Amino acid sequence: MRIACVLANGFEDSEFKEPYDAFRAAGQEVTIVGLEAGAQLEGSKGKVRATVDKSFKDISPDDFEALLIPGGFSPDRLRAHDEAVSFVKSIMRKGKPVFAICHGPQLLLTADEYKGHRMTAWKTVLGDLKKAGADVVDQEVVVDKNLVTSRMPADIPAFVRESLKLLQATPARR
Amino acid sequence: MRIACVLANGFEDSEFKEPYDAFRAAGQEVTIVGLEAGAQLEGSKGKVRATVDKSFKDISPDDFEALLIPGGFSPDRLRAHDEAVSFVKSIMRKGKPVFAICHGPQLLLTADEYKGHRMTAWKTVLGDLKKAGADVVDQEVVVDKNLVTSRMPADIPAFVRESLKLLQATPARR
Repeated sequence: MRIACVLANGFEDSEFKEPYDAFRAAGQEVTIVGLEAGAQLEGSKGKVRATVDKSFKDISPDDFEALLIPGGFSPDRLRAHDEAVSFVKSIMRKGKPVFAICHGPQLLLTADEYKGHRMTAWKTVLGDLKKAGADVVDQEVVVDKNLVTSRMPADIPAFVRESLKLLQATPARR
Repeated sequence: MRIACVLANGFEDSEFKEPYDAFRAAGQEVTIVGLEAGAQLEGSKGKVRATVDKSFKDISPDDFEALLIPGGFSPDRLRAHDEAVSFVKSIMRKGKPVFAICHGPQLLLTADEYKGHRMTAWKTVLGDLKKAGADVVDQEVVVDKNLVTSRMPADIPAFVRESLKLLQATPARR
């Protein structure tokens, strides 16, 4: 299965690293998609680095079976760019699995893809989603159709567990 | 005039430094209010440092005639804490001048103090405000009653000019 991980500077270190490692350990192919191919990124805690494999211009939503959106300041940076928002919107519209943690759901909010799914998020983002009319709940992980969401680093084990479960139930590369 | 500047790590360097310096040059007293008195803060670009003068626990909204909310990641960190949200809410409720730039209006969104004022903000936050029912407009500075808002560092000259104008029209220390 090919998973796009959308990432920009200031991502929350563990929210990128732990799901990324877990997906690869499970035999999935994870591509880091960002604003500029080859860019060196650093987590907000300075503990984890990552290199952008492909820019949004180089890819199509059809190249992937699933999407991972780590938290931190990365989602807010990404959602300022139309190509990132369109990519997320397209993946959601196709009903492909989307895994968003902490500030990750900010991208769903900007992409207008938050209605019709129950979800959770980091408390500040949860408030924004609620004011925008989303169906939100404060719990460690929420699975609703193709969407898995969690709130914060402490939720990562549940987030990874449910994301892997959903991937296993998803038809392989088309 | 006593101005509270609410600040946390990752503030946008120039959006703190330039209004702060301009207000002080105009003879105003600016207190940096944060989560922990004495904490050393750094801007997201690593160019500007600041020390928290007082924590939210040490102050009351009655101690100030106006409020400055610089942007960057600082407002999202602050709005995760009830004492910061309550402080902003109280200042807005009293109709005291509030100057918020870039991500600064995130605090107004979480404090439920965004209705009844036309405003602007950084594009990602502008979208969140709009979805929450706010009256938003994309321009360098918006002045509406006690609220002055701007979008980004390039807007700082207009933001400072209009903020100083509003301060001059405000009754002095009560």
